[in-house]
Amino acid sequence: MGSAPDLQPLAIVAGDGDLPKLLAEECQRSGRDYVLVLFAGFAPDWTGGLPVINAEFEKPARMFKALKAGGFRAVTFAGAMQRPQLRPLKFDWKFLRLAPTLLPAMKSGDDVTLRTITAIFESEGMEVLGAHDVLATLLAPSGVQTVAKLSKADWADIKRGFDIAEAAGRLDVGQGAVVAQGICLAVESIQGTDTMLRFVAETGDAFRLDKNGARGVLCKLPKPGQDWRTDLPSIGPATIRAAAKAGLAGVAVQAGGVLVLGLEQTVAKADELGLFLVGVGRDEAPNDSAGETP
Amino acid sequence: MGSAPDLQPLAIVAGDGDLPKLLAEECQRSGRDYVLVLFAGFAPDWTGGLPVINAEFEKPARMFKALKAGGFRAVTFAGAMQRPQLRPLKFDWKFLRLAPTLLPAMKSGDDVTLRTITAIFESEGMEVLGAHDVLATLLAPSGVQTVAKLSKADWADIKRGFDIAEAAGRLDVGQGAVVAQGICLAVESIQGTDTMLRFVAETGDAFRLDKNGARGVLCKLPKPGQDWRTDLPSIGPATIRAAAKAGLAGVAVQAGGVLVLGLEQTVAKADELGLFLVGVGRDEAPNDSAGETP
Repeated sequence: MGSAPDLQPLAIVAGDGDLPKLLAEECQRSGRDYVLVLFAGFAPDWTGGLPVINAEFEKPARMFKALKAGGFRAVTFAGAMQRPQLRPLKFDWKFLRLAPTLLPAMKSGDDVTLRTITAIFESEGMEVLGAHDVLATLLAPSGVQTVAKLSKADWADIKRGFDIAEAAGRLDVGQGAVVAQGICLAVESIQGTDTMLRFVAETGDAFRLDKNGARGVLCKLPKPGQDWRTDLPSIGPATIRAAAKAGLAGVAVQAGGVLVLGLEQTVAKADELGLFLVGVGRDEAPNDSAGETP
Repeated sequence: MGSAPDLQPLAIVAGDGDLPKLLAEECQRSGRDYVLVLFAGFAPDWTGGLPVINAEFEKPARMFKALKAGGFRAVTFAGAMQRPQLRPLKFDWKFLRLAPTLLPAMKSGDDVTLRTITAIFESEGMEVLGAHDVLATLLAPSGVQTVAKLSKADWADIKRGFDIAEAAGRLDVGQGAVVAQGICLAVESIQGTDTMLRFVAETGDAFRLDKNGARGVLCKLPKPGQDWRTDLPSIGPATIRAAAKAGLAGVAVQAGGVLVLGLEQTVAKADELGLFLVGVGRDEAPNDSAGETP
Protein backbone atom coordinates (compact mmCIF):
# COMPACT_ATOMS: atom_id res chain seq x y z
CA MET A 1 0.00 0.00 0.00
CA GLY A 2 1.75 3.20 -1.17
CA SER A 3 1.08 6.84 -0.45
CA ALA A 4 -1.56 8.57 -2.54
CA PRO A 5 -0.52 12.21 -2.90
CA ASP A 6 -3.35 12.90 -5.36
CA LEU A 7 -6.04 11.98 -2.84
CA GLN A 8 -6.88 14.51 -0.12
CA PRO A 9 -6.96 13.20 3.42
CA LEU A 10 -10.60 12.36 4.17
CA ALA A 11 -12.72 12.68 7.30
CA ILE A 12 -15.53 10.11 7.32
CA VAL A 13 -18.41 11.08 9.61
CA ALA A 14 -19.63 7.62 10.55
CA GLY A 15 -23.34 6.92 10.92
CA ASP A 16 -25.29 3.67 10.86
CA GLY A 17 -24.78 0.74 8.59
CA ASP A 18 -22.02 -0.52 6.34
CA LEU A 19 -21.21 2.62 4.38
CA PRO A 20 -18.56 4.16 6.67
CA LYS A 21 -16.76 0.82 6.85
CA LEU A 22 -16.82 0.45 3.05
CA LEU A 23 -15.35 3.93 2.68
CA ALA A 24 -12.68 3.30 5.31
CA GLU A 25 -11.71 0.11 3.49
CA GLU A 26 -11.56 2.01 0.20
CA CYS A 27 -9.21 4.55 1.79
CA GLN A 28 -7.01 1.74 3.12
CA ARG A 29 -7.02 0.05 -0.28
CA SER A 30 -6.04 3.21 -2.15
CA GLY A 31 -3.58 4.42 0.49
CA ARG A 32 -5.63 7.51 1.28
CA ASP A 33 -5.20 9.17 4.67
CA TYR A 34 -8.48 9.12 6.54
CA VAL A 35 -10.04 9.47 9.95
CA LEU A 36 -13.42 8.31 11.24
CA VAL A 37 -15.40 11.00 13.07
CA LEU A 38 -17.46 9.21 15.71
CA PHE A 39 -20.21 11.20 17.39
CA ALA A 40 -21.19 10.20 20.90
CA GLY A 41 -24.09 7.78 20.59
CA PHE A 42 -23.16 6.78 17.02
CA ALA A 43 -19.92 4.86 17.56
CA PRO A 44 -19.92 1.64 15.52
CA ASP A 45 -18.31 -1.50 16.90
CA TRP A 46 -15.73 -2.10 14.13
CA THR A 47 -13.43 0.89 14.60
CA GLY A 48 -10.92 -0.67 17.01
CA GLY A 49 -7.38 0.13 15.83
CA LEU A 50 -8.57 2.57 13.16
CA PRO A 51 -7.88 6.33 13.27
CA VAL A 52 -10.77 8.14 14.93
CA ILE A 53 -11.81 11.54 16.21
CA ASN A 54 -14.42 11.33 18.95
CA ALA A 55 -16.89 14.17 18.73
CA GLU A 56 -20.01 15.52 20.40
CA PHE A 57 -22.81 17.34 18.60
CA GLU A 58 -22.76 20.00 21.29
CA LYS A 59 -19.04 20.73 20.80
CA PRO A 60 -18.34 21.43 17.11
CA ALA A 61 -15.45 23.80 17.95
CA ARG A 62 -13.39 20.93 19.34
CA MET A 63 -14.20 18.70 16.34
CA PHE A 64 -13.23 21.30 13.75
CA LYS A 65 -10.02 22.01 15.66
CA ALA A 66 -9.12 18.30 15.61
CA LEU A 67 -9.92 18.03 11.89
CA LYS A 68 -7.72 21.02 11.09
CA ALA A 69 -4.91 19.76 13.29
CA GLY A 70 -5.03 16.47 11.39
CA GLY A 71 -4.90 18.21 8.00
CA PHE A 72 -8.39 17.02 7.01
CA ARG A 73 -9.98 19.48 4.59
CA ALA A 74 -12.38 17.01 2.94
CA VAL A 75 -15.29 15.29 4.66
CA THR A 76 -17.97 12.79 3.71
CA PHE A 77 -21.10 11.90 5.67
CA ALA A 78 -21.52 8.14 5.62
CA GLY A 79 -24.56 6.37 6.96
CA ALA A 80 -27.77 7.67 8.47
CA MET A 81 -27.83 9.44 11.82
CA GLN A 82 -30.98 9.93 13.77
CA ARG A 83 -31.40 13.48 14.98
CA PRO A 84 -29.64 13.62 18.36
CA GLN A 85 -31.18 14.58 21.66
CA LEU A 86 -29.13 17.70 22.34
CA ARG A 87 -27.92 18.60 25.85
CA PRO A 88 -27.97 22.42 25.90
CA LEU A 89 -25.74 22.72 28.96
CA LYS A 90 -22.87 21.21 26.94
CA PHE A 91 -23.07 23.64 24.00
CA ASP A 92 -19.72 25.22 23.16
CA TRP A 93 -19.33 28.75 21.75
CA LYS A 94 -19.44 27.55 18.15
CA PHE A 95 -22.64 25.61 18.69
CA LEU A 96 -24.22 28.68 20.22
CA ARG A 97 -23.19 30.67 17.14
CA LEU A 98 -24.64 27.99 14.82
CA ALA A 99 -27.81 27.36 16.85
CA PRO A 100 -29.97 30.10 15.25
CA THR A 101 -29.45 28.42 11.86
CA LEU A 102 -29.17 24.79 12.89
CA LEU A 103 -32.00 24.33 15.37
CA PRO A 104 -34.80 25.60 13.09
CA ALA A 105 -33.38 23.48 10.24
CA MET A 106 -33.60 20.37 12.43
CA LYS A 107 -37.35 20.95 12.69
CA SER A 108 -37.73 20.60 8.93
CA GLY A 109 -37.10 17.43 6.98
CA ASP A 110 -33.81 15.57 6.64
CA ASP A 111 -32.91 17.45 3.52
CA VAL A 112 -32.98 20.89 5.12
CA THR A 113 -31.05 19.57 8.12
CA LEU A 114 -28.33 18.05 5.97
CA ARG A 115 -28.03 21.12 3.75
CA THR A 116 -27.48 23.19 6.86
CA ILE A 117 -24.85 20.82 8.26
CA THR A 118 -23.13 20.76 4.87
CA ALA A 119 -23.07 24.56 4.81
CA ILE A 120 -21.57 24.59 8.31
CA PHE A 121 -18.69 22.34 7.27
CA GLU A 122 -18.12 24.43 4.14
CA SER A 123 -18.07 27.62 6.17
CA GLU A 124 -15.20 26.01 8.11
CA GLY A 125 -13.30 25.72 4.82
CA MET A 126 -13.95 22.00 4.33
CA GLU A 127 -14.95 20.34 1.09
CA VAL A 128 -17.97 18.03 1.40
CA LEU A 129 -17.76 14.92 -0.79
CA GLY A 130 -20.44 12.37 -1.58
CA ALA A 131 -19.77 8.73 -0.77
CA HIS A 132 -19.79 8.06 -4.51
CA ASP A 133 -17.06 10.70 -4.98
CA VAL A 134 -14.91 8.52 -2.75
CA LEU A 135 -15.98 5.19 -4.22
CA ALA A 136 -17.72 5.53 -7.58
CA THR A 137 -18.66 1.85 -7.80
CA LEU A 138 -21.18 2.37 -4.98
CA LEU A 139 -23.76 3.79 -7.39
CA ALA A 140 -26.45 1.38 -8.57
CA PRO A 141 -25.85 0.14 -12.12
CA SER A 142 -28.60 0.21 -14.72
CA GLY A 143 -30.66 -2.84 -15.66
CA VAL A 144 -31.71 -6.09 -14.05
CA GLN A 145 -28.91 -7.45 -11.84
CA THR A 146 -30.48 -10.72 -10.74
CA VAL A 147 -31.55 -14.12 -11.97
CA ALA A 148 -35.16 -13.14 -11.26
CA LYS A 149 -36.62 -11.06 -14.08
CA LEU A 150 -39.56 -8.64 -14.09
CA SER A 151 -43.11 -9.15 -15.29
CA LYS A 152 -45.09 -6.42 -16.99
CA ALA A 153 -47.05 -6.05 -13.74
CA ASP A 154 -43.78 -5.52 -11.83
CA TRP A 155 -42.84 -2.72 -14.25
CA ALA A 156 -46.26 -1.12 -13.74
CA ASP A 157 -45.73 -1.27 -9.96
CA ILE A 158 -42.29 0.33 -10.41
CA LYS A 159 -43.72 3.18 -12.45
CA ARG A 160 -46.32 3.91 -9.77
CA GLY A 161 -43.81 3.44 -6.93
CA PHE A 162 -41.37 5.89 -8.52
CA ASP A 163 -44.13 8.47 -8.97
CA ILE A 164 -45.15 8.14 -5.31
CA ALA A 165 -41.60 8.11 -3.92
CA GLU A 166 -40.73 11.15 -6.02
CA ALA A 167 -43.73 13.07 -4.65
CA ALA A 168 -42.76 12.07 -1.10
CA GLY A 169 -39.19 13.12 -1.80
CA ARG A 170 -40.22 16.48 -3.18
CA LEU A 171 -41.90 17.19 0.19
CA ASP A 172 -38.81 15.92 2.07
CA VAL A 173 -40.85 13.08 3.58
CA GLY A 174 -38.77 10.09 2.48
CA GLN A 175 -37.01 8.33 -0.37
CA GLY A 176 -39.07 5.24 -0.96
CA ALA A 177 -42.44 3.58 -1.43
CA VAL A 178 -43.89 0.08 -1.78
CA VAL A 179 -46.48 -0.71 -4.47
CA ALA A 180 -48.12 -4.06 -5.22
CA GLN A 181 -50.70 -4.64 -7.96
CA GLY A 182 -50.98 -0.88 -8.40
CA ILE A 183 -51.87 -0.32 -4.75
CA CYS A 184 -49.54 1.70 -2.51
CA LEU A 185 -48.76 -0.37 0.59
CA ALA A 186 -46.42 2.19 2.21
CA VAL A 187 -44.71 5.54 1.80
CA GLU A 188 -41.38 5.94 3.55
CA SER A 189 -41.32 8.52 6.31
CA ILE A 190 -38.69 9.49 8.90
CA GLN A 191 -38.43 5.94 10.32
CA GLY A 192 -36.68 4.74 7.17
CA THR A 193 -36.84 1.80 4.81
CA ASP A 194 -36.46 -1.06 7.28
CA THR A 195 -39.37 0.15 9.39
CA MET A 196 -41.48 0.69 6.28
CA LEU A 197 -40.78 -2.86 5.11
CA ARG A 198 -41.70 -4.22 8.54
CA PHE A 199 -44.99 -2.31 8.27
CA VAL A 200 -45.65 -3.91 4.89
CA ALA A 201 -44.79 -7.35 6.26
CA GLU A 202 -47.34 -6.85 9.04
CA THR A 203 -50.14 -5.15 7.11
CA GLY A 204 -49.73 -5.64 3.38
CA ASP A 205 -50.91 -9.11 2.59
CA ALA A 206 -54.66 -8.52 2.71
CA PHE A 207 -54.28 -5.84 0.02
CA ARG A 208 -52.72 -8.04 -2.65
CA LEU A 209 -56.07 -9.06 -4.07
CA ASP A 210 -54.83 -11.32 -6.81
CA LYS A 211 -53.11 -14.07 -4.85
CA ASN A 212 -51.28 -15.09 -8.04
CA GLY A 213 -50.54 -11.51 -9.08
CA ALA A 214 -47.53 -9.26 -8.65
CA ARG A 215 -46.04 -9.38 -5.13
CA GLY A 216 -44.94 -5.76 -5.14
CA VAL A 217 -41.79 -3.68 -5.37
CA LEU A 218 -39.71 -1.54 -3.04
CA CYS A 219 -38.80 1.61 -4.97
CA LYS A 220 -35.95 3.86 -3.82
CA LEU A 221 -34.73 7.06 -5.40
CA PRO A 222 -33.18 10.37 -4.32
CA LYS A 223 -35.37 13.29 -3.41
CA PRO A 224 -35.81 15.64 -6.40
CA GLY A 225 -33.24 18.39 -6.03
CA GLN A 226 -31.55 16.89 -3.00
CA ASP A 227 -27.82 17.40 -2.46
CA TRP A 228 -26.34 14.18 -3.81
CA ARG A 229 -23.32 14.54 -1.53
CA THR A 230 -25.39 13.72 1.52
CA ASP A 231 -28.04 11.17 2.28
CA LEU A 232 -28.30 9.43 -1.07
CA PRO A 233 -30.64 6.49 -0.49
CA SER A 234 -28.84 3.20 -0.03
CA ILE A 235 -29.63 -0.49 -0.07
CA GLY A 236 -27.68 -3.63 0.78
CA PRO A 237 -28.21 -7.30 1.55
CA ALA A 238 -30.26 -6.43 4.65
CA THR A 239 -32.67 -4.43 2.46
CA ILE A 240 -33.18 -7.48 0.26
CA ARG A 241 -33.85 -9.65 3.31
CA ALA A 242 -36.40 -7.16 4.64
CA ALA A 243 -38.07 -6.89 1.21
CA ALA A 244 -38.36 -10.69 1.09
CA LYS A 245 -39.94 -10.73 4.56
CA ALA A 246 -42.43 -8.12 3.30
CA GLY A 247 -43.41 -10.59 0.58
CA LEU A 248 -42.15 -8.41 -2.28
CA ALA A 249 -41.09 -9.53 -5.74
CA GLY A 250 -38.09 -7.26 -5.82
CA VAL A 251 -36.34 -3.93 -5.39
CA ALA A 252 -36.07 -1.11 -7.93
CA VAL A 253 -33.61 1.73 -7.45
CA GLN A 254 -32.75 4.74 -9.53
CA ALA A 255 -29.69 3.76 -11.58
CA GLY A 256 -26.80 6.04 -10.65
CA GLY A 257 -28.87 7.63 -7.87
CA VAL A 258 -28.83 5.03 -5.09
CA LEU A 259 -25.86 3.57 -3.21
CA VAL A 260 -25.63 -0.21 -3.22
CA LEU A 261 -23.53 -1.21 -0.22
CA GLY A 262 -21.87 -4.32 -1.56
CA LEU A 263 -23.36 -4.94 -5.00
CA GLU A 264 -22.08 -8.49 -5.23
CA GLN A 265 -23.44 -9.52 -1.82
CA THR A 266 -26.70 -7.69 -2.47
CA VAL A 267 -27.28 -9.47 -5.77
CA ALA A 268 -26.26 -12.80 -4.20
CA LYS A 269 -28.82 -12.31 -1.43
CA ALA A 270 -31.51 -11.42 -3.97
CA ASP A 271 -30.69 -14.50 -6.04
CA GLU A 272 -30.76 -16.66 -2.92
CA LEU A 273 -34.22 -15.35 -1.98
CA GLY A 274 -35.59 -15.20 -5.53
CA LEU A 275 -36.07 -11.41 -5.66
CA PHE A 276 -35.18 -9.13 -8.52
CA LEU A 277 -32.95 -6.08 -8.22
CA VAL A 278 -33.15 -3.53 -11.00
CA GLY A 279 -31.55 -0.14 -11.62
CA VAL A 280 -34.01 2.06 -13.49
CA GLY A 281 -33.02 5.18 -15.41
CA ARG A 282 -35.02 8.15 -14.14
CA ASP A 283 -36.29 8.72 -17.67
CA GLU A 284 -37.58 5.17 -17.95
CA ALA A 285 -39.74 4.78 -14.89
CA PRO A 286 -42.08 7.76 -15.04
CA ASN A 287 -43.09 7.19 -18.66
CA ASP A 288 -45.94 4.97 -19.65
CA SER A 289 -43.60 3.13 -21.99
CA ALA A 290 -41.77 1.78 -18.96
CA GLY A 291 -44.39 -0.93 -18.85
CA GLU A 292 -42.93 -2.24 -22.06
CA THR A 293 -39.30 -2.20 -20.95
CA PRO A 294 -37.96 -5.74 -21.03
CA MET B 1 -92.77 10.11 12.21
CA GLY B 2 -94.71 11.06 9.10
CA SER B 3 -94.24 10.15 5.46
CA ALA B 4 -91.69 12.18 3.55
CA PRO B 5 -92.82 12.41 -0.06
CA ASP B 6 -90.07 14.89 -0.91
CA LEU B 7 -87.32 12.41 -0.01
CA GLN B 8 -86.52 9.64 -2.50
CA PRO B 9 -86.30 6.13 -1.11
CA LEU B 10 -82.62 5.50 -0.36
CA ALA B 11 -80.42 2.41 -0.67
CA ILE B 12 -77.53 2.53 1.80
CA VAL B 13 -74.63 0.28 0.79
CA ALA B 14 -73.27 -0.54 4.22
CA GLY B 15 -69.53 -0.80 4.80
CA ASP B 16 -67.47 -0.61 7.98
CA GLY B 17 -67.97 1.72 10.87
CA ASP B 18 -70.75 3.92 12.18
CA LEU B 19 -71.71 5.78 9.01
CA PRO B 20 -74.35 3.38 7.61
CA LYS B 21 -76.03 3.25 11.00
CA LEU B 22 -76.06 7.05 11.28
CA LEU B 23 -77.66 7.29 7.84
CA ALA B 24 -80.25 4.62 8.63
CA GLU B 25 -81.15 6.50 11.82
CA GLU B 26 -81.45 9.74 9.83
CA CYS B 27 -83.85 8.02 7.42
CA GLN B 28 -85.92 6.72 10.35
CA ARG B 29 -85.93 10.18 11.96
CA SER B 30 -87.05 11.94 8.78
CA GLY B 31 -89.48 9.20 7.71
CA ARG B 32 -87.51 8.42 4.57
CA ASP B 33 -87.89 4.96 3.00
CA TYR B 34 -84.56 3.15 3.02
CA VAL B 35 -82.92 -0.21 2.68
CA LEU B 36 -79.48 -1.42 3.77
CA VAL B 37 -77.55 -3.25 1.06
CA LEU B 38 -75.36 -5.79 2.83
CA PHE B 39 -72.62 -7.43 0.80
CA ALA B 40 -71.52 -10.90 1.85
CA GLY B 41 -68.57 -10.45 4.18
CA PHE B 42 -69.55 -6.89 5.12
CA ALA B 43 -72.69 -7.48 7.15
CA PRO B 44 -72.67 -5.35 10.30
CA ASP B 45 -74.16 -6.67 13.53
CA TRP B 46 -76.75 -3.95 14.17
CA THR B 47 -79.14 -4.54 11.25
CA GLY B 48 -81.53 -6.98 12.96
CA GLY B 49 -85.12 -5.92 12.26
CA LEU B 50 -84.10 -3.29 9.70
CA PRO B 51 -84.90 -3.51 5.98
CA VAL B 52 -82.02 -5.13 4.12
CA ILE B 53 -81.05 -6.49 0.71
CA ASN B 54 -78.38 -9.16 0.90
CA ALA B 55 -75.99 -8.93 -2.04
CA GLU B 56 -72.87 -10.56 -3.43
CA PHE B 57 -70.18 -8.73 -5.38
CA GLU B 58 -70.24 -11.46 -8.00
CA LYS B 59 -73.99 -11.10 -8.59
CA PRO B 60 -74.81 -7.44 -9.38
CA ALA B 61 -77.76 -8.42 -11.63
CA ARG B 62 -79.68 -9.80 -8.63
CA MET B 63 -78.90 -6.73 -6.54
CA PHE B 64 -80.00 -4.22 -9.15
CA LYS B 65 -83.17 -6.23 -9.70
CA ALA B 66 -83.96 -6.11 -5.98
CA LEU B 67 -83.27 -2.37 -5.83
CA LYS B 68 -85.58 -1.69 -8.75
CA ALA B 69 -88.28 -3.95 -7.35
CA GLY B 70 -88.11 -1.96 -4.11
CA GLY B 71 -88.36 1.37 -5.92
CA PHE B 72 -84.90 2.48 -4.89
CA ARG B 73 -83.45 4.88 -7.43
CA ALA B 74 -81.02 6.66 -5.10
CA VAL B 75 -78.00 5.06 -3.44
CA THR B 76 -75.29 6.13 -1.05
CA PHE B 77 -72.08 4.27 -0.21
CA ALA B 78 -71.55 4.43 3.52
CA GLY B 79 -68.39 3.21 5.23
CA ALA B 80 -65.20 1.74 3.86
CA MET B 81 -65.10 -1.64 2.18
CA GLN B 82 -61.91 -3.51 1.62
CA ARG B 83 -61.55 -4.78 -1.93
CA PRO B 84 -63.22 -8.20 -1.91
CA GLN B 85 -61.63 -11.50 -2.85
CA LEU B 86 -63.77 -12.30 -5.88
CA ARG B 87 -64.92 -15.87 -6.65
CA PRO B 88 -64.99 -15.99 -10.46
CA LEU B 89 -67.14 -19.12 -10.58
CA LYS B 90 -70.00 -17.14 -9.03
CA PHE B 91 -69.96 -14.25 -11.55
CA ASP B 92 -73.39 -13.54 -13.04
CA TRP B 93 -73.96 -12.23 -16.59
CA LYS B 94 -73.87 -8.61 -15.49
CA PHE B 95 -70.62 -9.02 -13.62
CA LEU B 96 -69.10 -10.56 -16.72
CA ARG B 97 -70.27 -7.58 -18.76
CA LEU B 98 -68.81 -5.16 -16.16
CA ALA B 99 -65.58 -7.08 -15.62
CA PRO B 100 -63.53 -5.50 -18.45
CA THR B 101 -64.08 -2.07 -16.84
CA LEU B 102 -64.23 -3.02 -13.18
CA LEU B 103 -61.32 -5.42 -12.76
CA PRO B 104 -58.61 -3.10 -14.18
CA ALA B 105 -60.03 -0.23 -12.09
CA MET B 106 -59.64 -2.33 -8.94
CA LYS B 107 -55.91 -2.49 -9.64
CA SER B 108 -55.64 1.28 -9.40
CA GLY B 109 -56.20 3.29 -6.26
CA ASP B 110 -59.43 3.56 -4.29
CA ASP B 111 -60.50 6.62 -6.19
CA VAL B 112 -60.50 4.95 -9.61
CA THR B 113 -62.30 1.93 -8.17
CA LEU B 114 -65.02 4.03 -6.60
CA ARG B 115 -65.49 6.17 -9.69
CA THR B 116 -66.02 3.00 -11.67
CA ILE B 117 -68.52 1.58 -9.19
CA THR B 118 -70.35 4.91 -9.15
CA ALA B 119 -70.53 4.89 -12.95
CA ILE B 120 -71.94 1.35 -12.86
CA PHE B 121 -74.78 2.37 -10.52
CA GLU B 122 -75.48 5.43 -12.67
CA SER B 123 -75.59 3.32 -15.81
CA GLU B 124 -78.34 1.36 -14.04
CA GLY B 125 -80.31 4.59 -13.78
CA MET B 126 -79.58 5.18 -10.10
CA GLU B 127 -78.60 8.49 -8.56
CA VAL B 128 -75.50 8.30 -6.34
CA LEU B 129 -75.68 10.56 -3.29
CA GLY B 130 -72.97 11.50 -0.86
CA ALA B 131 -73.48 10.74 2.82
CA HIS B 132 -73.54 14.50 3.41
CA ASP B 133 -76.36 14.83 0.85
CA VAL B 134 -78.39 12.60 3.16
CA LEU B 135 -77.25 14.16 6.42
CA ALA B 136 -75.62 17.57 5.95
CA THR B 137 -74.57 17.89 9.57
CA LEU B 138 -72.00 15.13 9.04
CA LEU B 139 -69.53 17.57 7.47
CA ALA B 140 -66.82 18.86 9.79
CA PRO B 141 -67.46 22.41 10.98
CA SER B 142 -64.79 25.09 10.78
CA GLY B 143 -62.67 26.13 13.74
CA VAL B 144 -61.49 24.62 17.01
CA GLN B 145 -64.18 22.36 18.48
CA THR B 146 -62.47 21.36 21.72
CA VAL B 147 -61.35 22.67 25.05
CA ALA B 148 -57.75 22.03 23.99
CA LYS B 149 -56.42 24.86 21.82
CA LEU B 150 -53.58 24.88 19.31
CA SER B 151 -50.05 26.20 19.69
CA LYS B 152 -48.19 27.92 16.87
CA ALA B 153 -46.17 24.70 16.49
CA ASP B 154 -49.40 22.70 16.10
CA TRP B 155 -50.48 25.03 13.29
CA ALA B 156 -47.12 24.59 11.59
CA ASP B 157 -47.53 20.80 11.81
CA ILE B 158 -51.02 21.13 10.31
CA LYS B 159 -49.74 23.15 7.39
CA ARG B 160 -47.09 20.55 6.62
CA GLY B 161 -49.48 17.65 7.20
CA PHE B 162 -52.05 19.12 4.81
CA ASP B 163 -49.40 19.60 2.13
CA ILE B 164 -48.25 15.98 2.50
CA ALA B 165 -51.75 14.47 2.66
CA GLU B 166 -52.76 16.50 -0.39
CA ALA B 167 -49.80 15.19 -2.38
CA ALA B 168 -50.62 11.63 -1.29
CA GLY B 169 -54.25 12.20 -2.24
CA ARG B 170 -53.34 13.56 -5.66
CA LEU B 171 -51.60 10.22 -6.36
CA ASP B 172 -54.60 8.27 -4.97
CA VAL B 173 -52.42 6.89 -2.15
CA GLY B 174 -54.45 7.99 0.87
CA GLN B 175 -56.25 10.80 2.64
CA GLY B 176 -54.09 11.51 5.66
CA ALA B 177 -50.71 12.12 7.21
CA VAL B 178 -49.17 12.58 10.65
CA VAL B 179 -46.64 15.34 11.31
CA ALA B 180 -44.93 16.18 14.60
CA GLN B 181 -42.42 19.01 15.07
CA GLY B 182 -42.23 19.41 11.29
CA ILE B 183 -41.28 15.77 10.76
CA CYS B 184 -43.59 13.44 8.85
CA LEU B 185 -44.23 10.35 10.99
CA ALA B 186 -46.58 8.62 8.52
CA VAL B 187 -48.41 8.91 5.24
CA GLU B 188 -51.70 7.07 4.97
CA SER B 189 -51.74 4.27 2.42
CA ILE B 190 -54.31 1.58 1.58
CA GLN B 191 -54.43 0.22 5.16
CA GLY B 192 -56.23 3.35 6.36
CA THR B 193 -56.07 5.75 9.26
CA ASP B 194 -56.29 3.32 12.17
CA THR B 195 -53.35 1.27 10.90
CA MET B 196 -51.36 4.44 10.26
CA LEU B 197 -51.99 5.64 13.80
CA ARG B 198 -50.92 2.27 15.20
CA PHE B 199 -47.71 2.60 13.17
CA VAL B 200 -47.11 6.03 14.70
CA ALA B 201 -47.84 4.69 18.19
CA GLU B 202 -45.21 1.99 17.67
CA THR B 203 -42.51 3.95 15.85
CA GLY B 204 -43.00 7.67 16.29
CA ASP B 205 -41.77 8.56 19.71
CA ALA B 206 -38.03 8.55 18.99
CA PHE B 207 -38.58 11.17 16.30
CA ARG B 208 -40.13 13.82 18.51
CA LEU B 209 -36.82 15.38 19.40
CA ASP B 210 -38.07 18.11 21.66
CA LYS B 211 -39.66 16.17 24.49
CA ASN B 212 -41.53 19.32 25.50
CA GLY B 213 -42.39 20.25 21.92
CA ALA B 214 -45.45 19.69 19.75
CA ARG B 215 -46.83 16.15 19.98
CA GLY B 216 -48.03 16.06 16.40
CA VAL B 217 -51.25 16.16 14.42
CA LEU B 218 -53.33 13.74 12.38
CA CYS B 219 -54.39 15.58 9.23
CA LYS B 220 -57.28 14.32 7.09
CA LEU B 221 -58.63 15.80 3.89
CA PRO B 222 -60.25 14.63 0.65
CA LYS B 223 -58.11 13.72 -2.32
CA PRO B 224 -57.84 16.67 -4.73
CA GLY B 225 -60.48 16.19 -7.39
CA GLN B 226 -62.05 13.11 -5.79
CA ASP B 227 -65.76 12.45 -6.14
CA TRP B 228 -67.19 13.85 -2.90
CA ARG B 229 -70.14 11.48 -3.11
CA THR B 230 -67.96 8.48 -2.28
CA ASP B 231 -65.21 7.86 0.19
CA LEU B 232 -65.01 11.25 1.83
CA PRO B 233 -62.56 10.80 4.69
CA SER B 234 -64.24 10.37 8.04
CA ILE B 235 -63.35 10.49 11.71
CA GLY B 236 -65.16 9.65 14.90
CA PRO B 237 -64.53 8.94 18.60
CA ALA B 238 -62.41 5.89 17.69
CA THR B 239 -60.13 8.11 15.59
CA ILE B 240 -59.60 10.37 18.59
CA ARG B 241 -58.77 7.39 20.78
CA ALA B 242 -56.26 6.08 18.23
CA ALA B 243 -54.71 9.54 17.85
CA ALA B 244 -54.30 9.73 21.64
CA LYS B 245 -52.62 6.32 21.68
CA ALA B 246 -50.25 7.59 18.98
CA GLY B 247 -49.28 10.39 21.37
CA LEU B 248 -50.67 13.17 19.17
CA ALA B 249 -51.79 16.61 20.29
CA GLY B 250 -54.86 16.57 18.09
CA VAL B 251 -56.69 16.03 14.85
CA ALA B 252 -57.11 18.52 11.98
CA VAL B 253 -59.64 17.92 9.23
CA GLN B 254 -60.66 19.92 6.21
CA ALA B 255 -63.73 21.91 7.25
CA GLY B 256 -66.67 20.86 5.10
CA GLY B 257 -64.58 18.10 3.48
CA VAL B 258 -64.45 15.38 6.13
CA LEU B 259 -67.32 13.46 7.72
CA VAL B 260 -67.44 13.53 11.51
CA LEU B 261 -69.41 10.50 12.63
CA GLY B 262 -71.01 11.85 15.77
CA LEU B 263 -69.59 15.35 16.28
CA GLU B 264 -70.79 15.60 19.86
CA GLN B 265 -69.32 12.25 20.90
CA THR B 266 -66.12 12.94 18.96
CA VAL B 267 -65.57 16.29 20.66
CA ALA B 268 -66.45 14.76 24.04
CA LYS B 269 -63.83 12.03 23.53
CA ALA B 270 -61.25 14.63 22.50
CA ASP B 271 -62.03 16.74 25.57
CA GLU B 272 -61.81 13.66 27.78
CA LEU B 273 -58.38 12.79 26.38
CA GLY B 274 -57.10 16.36 26.11
CA LEU B 275 -56.75 16.44 22.32
CA PHE B 276 -57.77 19.24 20.02
CA LEU B 277 -60.08 18.82 17.04
CA VAL B 278 -60.04 21.56 14.43
CA GLY B 279 -61.75 22.07 11.09
CA VAL B 280 -59.42 23.96 8.79
CA GLY B 281 -60.55 25.82 5.68
CA ARG B 282 -58.60 24.56 2.70
CA ASP B 283 -57.45 28.11 2.04
CA GLU B 284 -56.02 28.48 5.51
CA ALA B 285 -53.78 25.48 5.88
CA PRO B 286 -51.57 25.66 2.81
CA ASN B 287 -50.57 29.27 3.28
CA ASP B 288 -47.66 30.36 5.37
CA SER B 289 -49.94 32.72 7.22
CA ALA B 290 -51.73 29.67 8.67
CA GLY B 291 -48.98 29.59 11.28
CA GLU B 292 -50.43 32.80 12.66
CA THR B 293 -54.04 31.64 12.79
CA PRO B 294 -55.18 31.67 16.43
